[in-house]
Amino acid sequence: MISSDLTRELFVTGSGARILLLVIDGLGGLPHPATGLSELETAALPNLDRLCGRSSCGLHSPLGPGFTPGSGPAHLALFGYDPWLRRIGRGALSCLGLGLDFRPGDVAARLNFCTVDGDGRVSDRRAGRIPTETCRRLCGLLADVDIPGVEVTVAPEMEYRAAVRFRGEGLSDGVGDSDPQVTGRPPLPLRAESADDRRMAAVAESFVARAGELLAGESPANMVLIRGFGSYPELPSMQDVYGLDPVGLAGYPMYRGIARAVGMDTPGCDARIDAQLDLLEARWQAGPEDFWYVHFKPTDSAGEDGDFDRKVSLLEEMDGHLPRLLDLKPEVLVVTGDHSTPSRMGGHSWHPVPVLILGEAGFPVAGTRMTERGCAGGSLGRIATTELMALALAHAGRLAKFGA
Amino acid sequence: MISSDLTRELFVTGSGARILLLVIDGLGGLPHPATGLSELETAALPNLDRLCGRSSCGLHSPLGPGFTPGSGPAHLALFGYDPWLRRIGRGALSCLGLGLDFRPGDVAARLNFCTVDGDGRVSDRRAGRIPTETCRRLCGLLADVDIPGVEVTVAPEMEYRAAVRFRGEGLSDGVGDSDPQVTGRPPLPLRAESADDRRMAAVAESFVARAGELLAGESPANMVLIRGFGSYPELPSMQDVYGLDPVGLAGYPMYRGIARAVGMDTPGCDARIDAQLDLLEARWQAGPEDFWYVHFKPTDSAGEDGDFDRKVSLLEEMDGHLPRLLDLKPEVLVVTGDHSTPSRMGGHSWHPVPVLILGEAGFPVAGTRMTERGCAGGSLGRIATTELMALALAHAGRLAKFGA
Repeated sequence: MISSDLTRELFVTGSGARILLLVIDGLGGLPHPATGLSELETAALPNLDRLCGRSSCGLHSPLGPGFTPGSGPAHLALFGYDPWLRRIGRGALSCLGLGLDFRPGDVAARLNFCTVDGDGRVSDRRAGRIPTETCRRLCGLLADVDIPGVEVTVAPEMEYRAAVRFRGEGLSDGVGDSDPQVTGRPPLPLRAESADDRRMAAVAESFVARAGELLAGESPANMVLIRGFGSYPELPSMQDVYGLDPVGLAGYPMYRGIARAVGMDTPGCDARIDAQLDLLEARWQAGPEDFWYVHFKPTDSAGEDGDFDRKVSLLEEMDGHLPRLLDLKPEVLVVTGDHSTPSRMGGHSWHPVPVLILGEAGFPVAGTRMTERGCAGGSLGRIATTELMALALAHAGRLAKFGA
Repeated sequence: MISSDLTRELFVTGSGARILLLVIDGLGGLPHPATGLSELETAALPNLDRLCGRSSCGLHSPLGPGFTPGSGPAHLALFGYDPWLRRIGRGALSCLGLGLDFRPGDVAARLNFCTVDGDGRVSDRRAGRIPTETCRRLCGLLADVDIPGVEVTVAPEMEYRAAVRFRGEGLSDGVGDSDPQVTGRPPLPLRAESADDRRMAAVAESFVARAGELLAGESPANMVLIRGFGSYPELPSMQDVYGLDPVGLAGYPMYRGIARAVGMDTPGCDARIDAQLDLLEARWQAGPEDFWYVHFKPTDSAGEDGDFDRKVSLLEEMDGHLPRLLDLKPEVLVVTGDHSTPSRMGGHSWHPVPVLILGEAGFPVAGTRMTERGCAGGSLGRIATTELMALALAHAGRLAKFGA
């Protein structure tokens, strides 16, 4: 993180310069074996390519060479927080994203509704992807779970996913997952990482057992898997660190969650990009906010599904929306991804992520394109993702000189 | 800083290999909007470009991406000291540069002679840029300031600038500036940063009040602003850290100051580059010294003034002097800047700075030029400014192998 007593005094507030950060999730990819071209190299991206010719470009790595980040660490790095030092359990992100009242001392986890057979073995880890409606009803059933001394709150997410918040004395987040990751096996027993975590493991074990009883008559979702235990993340806010007044527009709860964890206002937001842009435009002129984070999710999902062509189309779709962002005339526009999700790998990867920063103080290099290879020759070079915030602030004239 | 118990034993002394470091202040720039070419790209630099073809080239950042350094931190980084950890108040640099007897326990600050109106409001922060002669006379008046238990010494710099040294028990440098930075307001009260700094704040307040009385009859310089409080910088010397015998040739007091702070001999030196080179040539053959720092200031001033064309001319002028440096046949020649000063920004910036290192062990890359873009493909890549000293020593064969 660039925050410290040394750097904090350098952040210039009140300049009015606005930074707009568009995160195209899972942006980077790998060459298609048949063509030798990556998703970004295959897509027609006239707006992004034109922007590159006016911007500072480069490549960034969330965790350094070779290390693949989850969405949480990757986003923390984008916002300038050291992802190795600041861990946030996925459950905590879900709770934050759902807008649950989540406080220091609470512990959260994610739930999957699943199907178990007569012997208690998991036969479908996602219970046939039950509709969100059903998820909501089942969460209502789980409201009856009663654990002495602990307040339990269950909230639905999309389809088979839900989140649970435990509130009480002596809770902690050092507890393993119950998800066996494969079918044909029973859920794993909940293991405490240390003696201090034994109470939490016992509380969670009681919760799962009672949930099993309450769901026994349901089909297909007759059990829950629990994972991603996390405490309330006590991060300094972007207000404190950078003197920014930040807003996050993200349709998916987890991304809203991480945005809230760093102090962003996160208005309720549709997952469709055009709805997000409507909201952005409506608030942009009125608001005092000076840092805007907009999250575009579908590119990552296409990469995760191994669907090269769909990822290409989605990149082109996003490119088509860029003029709406430019029309807002932000003093600084940053376009990048949180990490790479090559379709060929069907998952996140460690490969560096292209980035462009458009602003007055930019240093463009001819021939730069919004691709993995096309950004390699940009003036930003290869940087750590955690360094992006300082560069964005610098391009916005919001970083004062250090020393005389 | 590259000094540590680990590296100190690696520095080879007695090889006789000399390192000549030419610092072209504020070297880097940004493209002119009309041409798309930076100051370095616009200038005709036949000597530098020819040298690039025989040198290791690259780009360096004094404070990392996005952070803009003052001259002090930037020079500390060039000499291999971590600029985030080693802060030197500008007053301390001035004192050192002026050759004042400055010792541990002393506190220094900078003075601006200024004009205040009848209500005590600053009407001109530079007192109409009074000539240096006047400054000298006014400093003489201030010799009469008498503060019990504190020895006060005032010394003139150029035009309206002076430095003050306080010597006595219990002084410290945690005191804010009195310069309001704008006209129409009275000087700021001197604020102590902590309880330990209250005595120093009171001493400085007495000094300013008494100075106001002594200058009351003067015009236009009837008051002083005080800023940049700094203690004696206790830095390990380049002799201790690298086993070098260093000399610094700089016309401006502040740069002599920082050179002295790291243990350089700093002979009195004209600010004109040809006079500096005369002095360099005269001492070069005779001296036992093996590290030479030569500072060329005018390029930075032109950038600060936003004068693109003048910066271009000055770069060309400096290029014309290069044969004199080459004629000395230093074993290693390093040409770089301390930071970028793009004319377009009219001030220092964070943009990486081109560097060339000419020496036996260099690895040239065809097509490299002494420009921001032309050095990006050099064999040194992108480095921290603090890494340059190790590279210079390595090119000079003055760094031994680590481990067997």
